Amino acid sequence: MNFASDNTAGAHPAIVAALAAASDGRAMPYGNDPWTERVAARLAALFEREVAVFPVATGTAANALALAALTPPWGAVLCHEAAHIQVDECGAPELLTGGAKLVPLAGDHGKIAAGALDAALARGVFGVVHSVQPSVLSLTQATESGTVYTPDEVRALAGRARAKGLAVHMDGARFANAVAALGVAPAAITWRAGVDVLSLGATKDGAFAAEAIVFFDRARADGFAYRRKRAGHLFSKMRFLSAQLDAWLADDLWLANARHANAMARRLAEGLGRLPGVHLQHPVEANAVFAALPGAVIARLAAAGFRFYRWPDDTADAVRLVTAWDTRADDVDALVAAAREGIDQSS
Amino acid sequence: MNFASDNTAGAHPAIVAALAAASDGRAMPYGNDPWTERVAARLAALFEREVAVFPVATGTAANALALAALTPPWGAVLCHEAAHIQVDECGAPELLTGGAKLVPLAGDHGKIAAGALDAALARGVFGVVHSVQPSVLSLTQATESGTVYTPDEVRALAGRARAKGLAVHMDGARFANAVAALGVAPAAITWRAGVDVLSLGATKDGAFAAEAIVFFDRARADGFAYRRKRAGHLFSKMRFLSAQLDAWLADDLWLANARHANAMARRLAEGLGRLPGVHLQHPVEANAVFAALPGAVIARLAAAGFRFYRWPDDTADAVRLVTAWDTRADDVDALVAAAREGIDQSS
Amino acid sequence: MNFASDNTAGAHPAIVAALAAASDGRAMPYGNDPWTERVAARLAALFEREVAVFPVATGTAANALALAALTPPWGAVLCHEAAHIQVDECGAPELLTGGAKLVPLAGDHGKIAAGALDAALARGVFGVVHSVQPSVLSLTQATESGTVYTPDEVRALAGRARAKGLAVHMDGARFANAVAALGVAPAAITWRAGVDVLSLGATKDGAFAAEAIVFFDRARADGFAYRRKRAGHLFSKMRFLSAQLDAWLADDLWLANARHANAMARRLAEGLGRLPGVHLQHPVEANAVFAALPGAVIARLAAAGFRFYRWPDDTADAVRLVTAWDTRADDVDALVAAAREGIDQSS
Amino acid sequence: MNFASDNTAGAHPAIVAALAAASDGRAMPYGNDPWTERVAARLAALFEREVAVFPVATGTAANALALAALTPPWGAVLCHEAAHIQVDECGAPELLTGGAKLVPLAGDHGKIAAGALDAALARGVFGVVHSVQPSVLSLTQATESGTVYTPDEVRALAGRARAKGLAVHMDGARFANAVAALGVAPAAITWRAGVDVLSLGATKDGAFAAEAIVFFDRARADGFAYRRKRAGHLFSKMRFLSAQLDAWLADDLWLANARHANAMARRLAEGLGRLPGVHLQHPVEANAVFAALPGAVIARLAAAGFRFYRWPDDTADAVRLVTAWDTRADDVDALVAAAREGIDQSS
Repeated sequence: MNFASDNTAGAHPAIVAALAAASDGRAMPYGNDPWTERVAARLAALFEREVAVFPVATGTAANALALAALTPPWGAVLCHEAAHIQVDECGAPELLTGGAKLVPLAGDHGKIAAGALDAALARGVFGVVHSVQPSVLSLTQATESGTVYTPDEVRALAGRARAKGLAVHMDGARFANAVAALGVAPAAITWRAGVDVLSLGATKDGAFAAEAIVFFDRARADGFAYRRKRAGHLFSKMRFLSAQLDAWLADDLWLANARHANAMARRLAEGLGRLPGVHLQHPVEANAVFAALPGAVIARLAAAGFRFYRWPDDTADAVRLVTAWDTRADDVDALVAAAREGIDQSS
Repeated sequence: MNFASDNTAGAHPAIVAALAAASDGRAMPYGNDPWTERVAARLAALFEREVAVFPVATGTAANALALAALTPPWGAVLCHEAAHIQVDECGAPELLTGGAKLVPLAGDHGKIAAGALDAALARGVFGVVHSVQPSVLSLTQATESGTVYTPDEVRALAGRARAKGLAVHMDGARFANAVAALGVAPAAITWRAGVDVLSLGATKDGAFAAEAIVFFDRARADGFAYRRKRAGHLFSKMRFLSAQLDAWLADDLWLANARHANAMARRLAEGLGRLPGVHLQHPVEANAVFAALPGAVIARLAAAGFRFYRWPDDTADAVRLVTAWDTRADDVDALVAAAREGIDQSS
Repeated sequence: MNFASDNTAGAHPAIVAALAAASDGRAMPYGNDPWTERVAARLAALFEREVAVFPVATGTAANALALAALTPPWGAVLCHEAAHIQVDECGAPELLTGGAKLVPLAGDHGKIAAGALDAALARGVFGVVHSVQPSVLSLTQATESGTVYTPDEVRALAGRARAKGLAVHMDGARFANAVAALGVAPAAITWRAGVDVLSLGATKDGAFAAEAIVFFDRARADGFAYRRKRAGHLFSKMRFLSAQLDAWLADDLWLANARHANAMARRLAEGLGRLPGVHLQHPVEANAVFAALPGAVIARLAAAGFRFYRWPDDTADAVRLVTAWDTRADDVDALVAAAREGIDQSS
Repeated sequence: MNFASDNTAGAHPAIVAALAAASDGRAMPYGNDPWTERVAARLAALFEREVAVFPVATGTAANALALAALTPPWGAVLCHEAAHIQVDECGAPELLTGGAKLVPLAGDHGKIAAGALDAALARGVFGVVHSVQPSVLSLTQATESGTVYTPDEVRALAGRARAKGLAVHMDGARFANAVAALGVAPAAITWRAGVDVLSLGATKDGAFAAEAIVFFDRARADGFAYRRKRAGHLFSKMRFLSAQLDAWLADDLWLANARHANAMARRLAEGLGRLPGVHLQHPVEANAVFAALPGAVIARLAAAGFRFYRWPDDTADAVRLVTAWDTRADDVDALVAAAREGIDQSS
């Protein structure tokens, strides 16, 4: 009954099995192995084009290294003010880019408002030596608020950025959830919409610890192997990262996991949404539900053993509930029932 | 028949099983889990004192982050000229320390010569603003040449360094092999001998990808959690790192694996050492054999399917042969036999 | 007739003379010279306490190096959203701190609003490994809007910051103007009000290029000499920096220069303020006037040879007019007259 | 009677006068001034080609910024083991390049031995992800040992480096002395011999504090303005740097100063060289004399008020004597006489 985060889930049995199988025998290190090759081929097929792929183990590494490939140290990275790179990575982008600056932009429901981006791009800082130079737009898909950008929205924002010479990064820690929510081809919300580099996350969607940095423009990956290595993110036994990704991509496990998580979030949202005194704060499009509800009810849920975070912080009368590939409908229903009971008793 | 590196081995079945078991169900992220707690307790017991422990996934991360905790950005890290941090980490220490300088020292068989350290410490650079300030001595145990420092040797070098105010780091990517070779308590070649921080490697000794940064002086770990995070090395599903370390430490698996690898290296050394035209270049104390032998024989071994690196580079008439927890005596014997046959035919 | 910036002024004759005098003969380098010693003594007297002093040549260097001494690389520096460190230093603080993050705060007239600081300090990020750690409050005195913080205001903001463990930095590129405006002892708006380190600027107030980083708590200066050197900011012929500061501090030249500049700004503000259609955007307390006026009048002033910047950017119907130690009353009056004439003709 | 360093000299009267003149009146900041324009034109004429020029105030800044323009953070800079960048800049190159590694090479008399460079370039590290990538060869002209590379020597070393894809940097803190010694066109030992970027030093040759980073290939200067700014090395009152360089370049003052300094060194070398018990350690080609002589004599010279450094450190029975633009023949002769007297008395 853990709704604290999708990173509290274990790994999917198919991934566990793949890892065990990959462990049998010897393989050459640092990515010179069949699993890593296979992952590259699978991602090329999935994205319908040649890509350069670099597996790493954490989302923070994927994001910060990807940004480092796109911005000079004197660059600025435009992102949503609630973006993971801005608030949850303890300055990793600053470290790995050599000191680039993140510029937070506003926007409802975790999505950058076009107007906020326009304003940022209209500032007269381009070519001015005193100012960091806007170099990257980073979009989070699905967002930190559990919403998704449509292909048109990605294209519109990315287009604005590219028109001013910026590269476009997508933080896809929950990319699978976004694809599942939108029902589109992965290409439609990435390179076809103007994205240059994707941080593709498997960890939250059923892996142990596996992310892939995917370059759609392979030229941008020049020197990236050194960048990854010198940040300590090149695995010697790379097959263990790649085997996770391989199993995750096989038979559309990635999509099935994400669909399940999304469905559980919808079920939760529908259940809670019907309760008096509960207010859903964001559209529930991916695998997270943000709900305002009475403090007494929150306390009751916690006492009943449900785990979650008050959001945006400990003092809020609101919670974030995240579902994952292994969330059970029974647990969802139990939470809704407990909330209902709490509300009934409070009133 | 892969002798290229101990990192070409898979994970030990007990570690595979532990990982699978750890995957069952939910656990809180970022190290707030029972596995991580257990690892800390096991290491405290193993080292006979309180320690601060930070699991990471690669040896390069462990080393570079540990050094970053010990040196200011204007510091110098004294190490052997063949140390992994100096030649095999693509500048990771420079990146993560914020630009500290590595100072390579000479010494036979991969071990820093006391005289070389003395000379470095005698240079009149302390307190001179134009010079980087010697801040850390880094010892590799077991060394890159397959040798080990005795407790007295560690104490002597560490003592010299500490007398001048330097901290002492140990790159223990093959620490288990060193303990197995020396038959001493882990404490005897670490904190009791003057080591402040250890990069303790499990990856080469039977894990998938797991290292622990061990601080013997917990005060030195102040702020280290941020350092790890901002380098992208804090795992959300930390239990998967910790479960590996937990199983590796349980029932002395770490030691059994290392003893086996060392025994295989000795068997290989004894076999090869008896052949005419073969010269062992370093004492074989841990799990690597460095042997000069005729180029024609090397070519023959490669053609026969044995994998290894010519050493120090592709043009050398010498090879590095590394054994691991899973090296089979039969394969060792086969290699020796093939070498003997090659020598017989060449002569 | 240049009102573009106080950095378009030359050096004061007394400073020119001092530099010429200092050039006569030999002196030991790197600060081991009588001028540098004298500057330290003068600043100790001026601030009524022992200080550690480090001359550098640019305000950006002074600020970024000072911040680097106060924050770990994973720290956050709270500052006004218009602060020089945030918008005009091209990421120098990020570079020299090793990647710390600047957190912009709102506030009218260039001064951080207490409420904005409270909100920033109330965020539940302290001790949370995912977040950069608030480490420094940076105040600009005088501000980028030509206003000044009173001693009480400094104390109130610094007190809030210190209560949460933050250090306090003051960007005093125009510190002299602030002292002149407030008529207080320098100590009253620095260490007595909770400031730990001051970037004290002479460049804009009559020097060629000279700033002093002043540590009120000398313990914080530990290692700072290395920090300055490795950023390339240690002058070999240091006497030439110090001779400027020495002359600037002698006979209260610093204060006289600032008083004159402030007086010229007041004269300008009074003149413009009386004109119909002119709106002064900020209180004029130091040496800058921010005035909204008709675009046609702005164009006329430019055509008449007055130099200034439209502010905040080229499209604004508003200007920034900065006065300096050498601004002549005649030029001020000429500008006011030209503006009056323009307004008359426009209406 | 100061022979400690050429940086103990003051500024040449012509430069003092130029600075005073430049201070009269207003000028636009950050290099948009006639002095800076003129310096660029003078250097284009001097080097017989278009160049991109960036004035800075210290040699360490010039070197470290120039290197940062030539190497990625994962690069290696090959230099002489006694190079200023390696031993006297407290890690500035490491900081400003984002962590590149310096690789010290041996060679007599401060000059990189061709064999040492060949060996470094022959190492199988190119394209190997574990190794920093050799990216720059840095030559010091004149060297730290007071010698100079001939045009052929520069061409030979630079050619080797360029053949392997490295860029070539020249640390010309004493470039004027080298040109004066060789009697060649500046182009002959820079771009015509394969040098890409020159750190051109005026400080030691008669300026207060002024160096110019000169890019012979302007494309390499892309983004360099941001690099300089974010390191705090863009002067607001740039005219004061440029006015120094302008006067230094006018009427061949740079060359006259250097010729004088070199002549004084030769006079010193000839005088000392004739004394029994004195051994000149390096050819005296520029403005420094390295001489071994009895400790008692050294002590005597110091007692007589001559200032110099024992070299390479305080314990050596050898000294470094540096001459400058203002060294007087009388002082040289006095030192020789005092040494002779000392030797006579010792024997």
